[in-house]
Amino acid sequence: MEIGLIGLGKMGFNMALNMNDKGNTVFATDVNKDTVKEISAEGVKGVDSIEELANSFTGRKAVILLVPAGEIVDQVIEQLKPHLTEGDIIVDAGNSMYKHTLRRYEELKASGIHLVDVGTSGGTDGARYGLCAMMGGDDDAVNYLAPLYEKICVEKGFMITGRAGSGHFLKMVHNGIEYGMMQAIGEGFEILDKSDFDYDYEAVSRVWNNGSVIRSWLIELMENAFSKQPKLEDIRGVMNSSGEGIWTVEAALDYQASAPVIALSQFMRFRSLEDDTFHGKVVAALRNEFGGHAVVKK
Amino acid sequence: MEIGLIGLGKMGFNMALNMNDKGNTVFATDVNKDTVKEISAEGVKGVDSIEELANSFTGRKAVILLVPAGEIVDQVIEQLKPHLTEGDIIVDAGNSMYKHTLRRYEELKASGIHLVDVGTSGGTDGARYGLCAMMGGDDDAVNYLAPLYEKICVEKGFMITGRAGSGHFLKMVHNGIEYGMMQAIGEGFEILDKSDFDYDYEAVSRVWNNGSVIRSWLIELMENAFSKQPKLEDIRGVMNSSGEGIWTVEAALDYQASAPVIALSQFMRFRSLEDDTFHGKVVAALRNEFGGHAVVKK
Amino acid sequence: MEIGLIGLGKMGFNMALNMNDKGNTVFATDVNKDTVKEISAEGVKGVDSIEELANSFTGRKAVILLVPAGEIVDQVIEQLKPHLTEGDIIVDAGNSMYKHTLRRYEELKASGIHLVDVGTSGGTDGARYGLCAMMGGDDDAVNYLAPLYEKICVEKGFMITGRAGSGHFLKMVHNGIEYGMMQAIGEGFEILDKSDFDYDYEAVSRVWNNGSVIRSWLIELMENAFSKQPKLEDIRGVMNSSGEGIWTVEAALDYQASAPVIALSQFMRFRSLEDDTFHGKVVAALRNEFGGHAVVKK
Amino acid sequence: MEIGLIGLGKMGFNMALNMNDKGNTVFATDVNKDTVKEISAEGVKGVDSIEELANSFTGRKAVILLVPAGEIVDQVIEQLKPHLTEGDIIVDAGNSMYKHTLRRYEELKASGIHLVDVGTSGGTDGARYGLCAMMGGDDDAVNYLAPLYEKICVEKGFMITGRAGSGHFLKMVHNGIEYGMMQAIGEGFEILDKSDFDYDYEAVSRVWNNGSVIRSWLIELMENAFSKQPKLEDIRGVMNSSGEGIWTVEAALDYQASAPVIALSQFMRFRSLEDDTFHGKVVAALRNEFGGHAVVKK
Repeated sequence: MEIGLIGLGKMGFNMALNMNDKGNTVFATDVNKDTVKEISAEGVKGVDSIEELANSFTGRKAVILLVPAGEIVDQVIEQLKPHLTEGDIIVDAGNSMYKHTLRRYEELKASGIHLVDVGTSGGTDGARYGLCAMMGGDDDAVNYLAPLYEKICVEKGFMITGRAGSGHFLKMVHNGIEYGMMQAIGEGFEILDKSDFDYDYEAVSRVWNNGSVIRSWLIELMENAFSKQPKLEDIRGVMNSSGEGIWTVEAALDYQASAPVIALSQFMRFRSLEDDTFHGKVVAALRNEFGGHAVVKK
Repeated sequence: MEIGLIGLGKMGFNMALNMNDKGNTVFATDVNKDTVKEISAEGVKGVDSIEELANSFTGRKAVILLVPAGEIVDQVIEQLKPHLTEGDIIVDAGNSMYKHTLRRYEELKASGIHLVDVGTSGGTDGARYGLCAMMGGDDDAVNYLAPLYEKICVEKGFMITGRAGSGHFLKMVHNGIEYGMMQAIGEGFEILDKSDFDYDYEAVSRVWNNGSVIRSWLIELMENAFSKQPKLEDIRGVMNSSGEGIWTVEAALDYQASAPVIALSQFMRFRSLEDDTFHGKVVAALRNEFGGHAVVKK
Repeated sequence: MEIGLIGLGKMGFNMALNMNDKGNTVFATDVNKDTVKEISAEGVKGVDSIEELANSFTGRKAVILLVPAGEIVDQVIEQLKPHLTEGDIIVDAGNSMYKHTLRRYEELKASGIHLVDVGTSGGTDGARYGLCAMMGGDDDAVNYLAPLYEKICVEKGFMITGRAGSGHFLKMVHNGIEYGMMQAIGEGFEILDKSDFDYDYEAVSRVWNNGSVIRSWLIELMENAFSKQPKLEDIRGVMNSSGEGIWTVEAALDYQASAPVIALSQFMRFRSLEDDTFHGKVVAALRNEFGGHAVVKK
Repeated sequence: MEIGLIGLGKMGFNMALNMNDKGNTVFATDVNKDTVKEISAEGVKGVDSIEELANSFTGRKAVILLVPAGEIVDQVIEQLKPHLTEGDIIVDAGNSMYKHTLRRYEELKASGIHLVDVGTSGGTDGARYGLCAMMGGDDDAVNYLAPLYEKICVEKGFMITGRAGSGHFLKMVHNGIEYGMMQAIGEGFEILDKSDFDYDYEAVSRVWNNGSVIRSWLIELMENAFSKQPKLEDIRGVMNSSGEGIWTVEAALDYQASAPVIALSQFMRFRSLEDDTFHGKVVAALRNEFGGHAVVKK
């Protein structure tokens, strides 16, 4: 089938190749023209503009956006919309906040255009060789896209999740769980590292990944990471985050759900970005005030 | 090889069959004589007492204990010790607290007996068809046992972890991570459940387990669980715990390691055991005192 | 001075009396006409409608709103606005979310009307005999109101906090701290309660409130509460919350501030509202799946 | 009355002066002979050794220990014990772990010597001018000491808490609450500090301490601290801790009490001692492995 793709970053580039491999006609564009050239060399039909991309279709237009979450999604939709007609489909396959998705869905609906939200997981390798995808949206649009996604996903790795927004919401919660799992794994290795025992962490990851209760892709990835550096010597423990952990905690607050572990995982990430904290200063000052405990000076 | 096994609970029974399958001569006993009969019917050499078990060996004695952690381990060792001689091996394959293991190791060392600590994971199915095992102890004893464990573990699922105590410590931390992962997964489903969307949780588990970052055995088990009951309707959210989460938090406190997520997972388990909390009463009383907010009466 | 007051709930009623005591002319109204009658009997000028209230002023109009946070604030402003002219002042003295305050401030500014936001603390007794108030807004409006607030607050209990929104924001953070303090106190008593010792909690609160590091109004209130019921026997530990804890956590997320303790305090409140949890069901189901651990049936 | 005091650190020195002021005969010693000289100049009877201290009494001997928790307490008891006879009293007024107190109590009981445990709060100023003290132990010994403590404590600041160990346990839990309160206050100021508003923190502390729900000695101390440095510019946020937070969490684990906020407060203190964390490295490595997210290099 004919499919458009806007955004050729790490994920988009690989996904374009993946769709192309599966026999689809992929029209792809990006603000970076070098990337467009590069992908064209691989058989994908690289085009220079969103307009050109839209005009390349011979039939029903379905265009996947893989651009950074936030205002850029609105801008791209704004540029794309004039070239679409009733029944056409925009797929937001990025990590958009589900409330934004719901707003955009309603706005596009007024023009008869379907917005389909797809949460994807699996990293860059997944994009290339087999995604996990969660798709929400109108039945008609979702059914049109399903055969494509069945092919580019791993077996059983594609799910139609329900009405608009449900794909992004489910992916968001997935990432919240991911944050909690990663923090739990990190804490475990931290305890090992501070203990009196002396472990080979690559071997630990390997044994944990074979037959244990916590066997998982994340533990498998730790084996890879430790095989490169036994103690992660060169890495600083700076834990950046995209918005999805934050949004999961906000959703928990909205729905009054207890999510202490996911929230803590997010807060420890914030903490890791700072060299020093104001709450620490306050506590240190208090200890000095009441107990005369020395503070550490800058 | 000849191997003894004391304790034929869910794990021990399956492990006896597993060892027997792999061509070992397994002498097994339990306080429950019916279980001993049952296992004898499967080809394992069931015996009626610890003494008889010890006397069954024709050569070097190596006896695995799979009994509940705590004083029972000490009692069984006390009963077994008179029947062992220098160079013999006791394997504590249960979930003993590593500090207890270190004490017992020193006590047995004085008699020339090796205590080997093995942390095992993988559940009852793992015990039957392929364990994950982490073994700590003296080189001589560990090397004697390694060929046996290589056979009863899944491929790459056996690790020699270092000196005495290191096997139980590593298994303990594994369980701490497990607690964190499970709580994270639980929170994710709780947010889904309280959300405005309507998901099929079995399908969610399936898609998350195919290609996503959080794919793992635990998510696979959730697919099983939801296939039996779509909303876990009949289960109360009572989260019991063995000691290992507690010990992991204590280890974190001992070593001054930050382990907020593992600690929280343990505290949420405690919380789940209670119908009401005293801290809740205090907060409710305070709100009433300063703001006149109504309390909920019993 | 002349001052209007809309909303005669627990806080508003007491504040009307407080302002009246201090020699102000207070025009007060409420949807509940009985309350209006009641307050009129105390010397306050009760009026039947917002229109009447606005028309009662002989000079510059300044009207305090003490109505529930949310849409009601918008509705009352909508009703009040036609009766105000440039330079008049609306004081939102309730617990409005600071982002809503900023929006309303901008909307009213377009009509030349000042919105002043006042966060107040101290409970109902404080409203009656001496508030703690944090006031944000335009200098001109804030300076007009300052003499009034100086009189109805306790000594040093009034602060001009800066531009619009800063009063509500500061009060919100105050409440976040309050949540953390209350949870910490609750946890302390819970540990005492589960311990092997047997304490008289009223005496404990009294001693902690005299000379200790944690002496505070909250501990004083616990002494009151325990004096009524030694073990809070009749109270269920249901910890309701207004929105301010939630908003504080959201602000922490917005600003990437580490606020684990405030967040946890909020989540424990959510947890206390539930008899059972879905995360608990998930964890219990997982334990059953991998270890055959019995679940508790409903 | 005659009273001995071993340990003239910040707390002990002030407490010696306090007891001396109230008309007691105070025999005091310390390993630091300069301090002994210094206190002698203030009217306290400084002596050069524990033996001399014990021999100075004309009647029943009661000796307060104010030495660092841990082995030093055992050593000092060992030195003191030969000079005491049945019915004499050792008062451990330091921050000993309550389980150690229970062990020492039993050991001394065998010799007919009473061990009384006193938890004290109030900082160095409290030690000098009015303590808060919680006293556990045998009735006979506690009653002997009560008149002394009534005088050196603030009014209502002395409590007889029950059997041996109950004083130290209650003080420990007090400190757990203190940790939670301090962290909550710290987080509040951190959110203010990261916000878009611009507050005078000294003024904020002042207003919060006058009439608000969170008014407390800790907030009063923050006013002092901010009066010295408006943004605590020179202080690093290193939050040291004595053992009492750790022990409170351990007690919570022992008694299966939910204490997430106290636990988190302790973990954030550990975190503040580290420039980098191993759990952070693990999470950063994982993000790099699955998503190609750049790590921060050392």
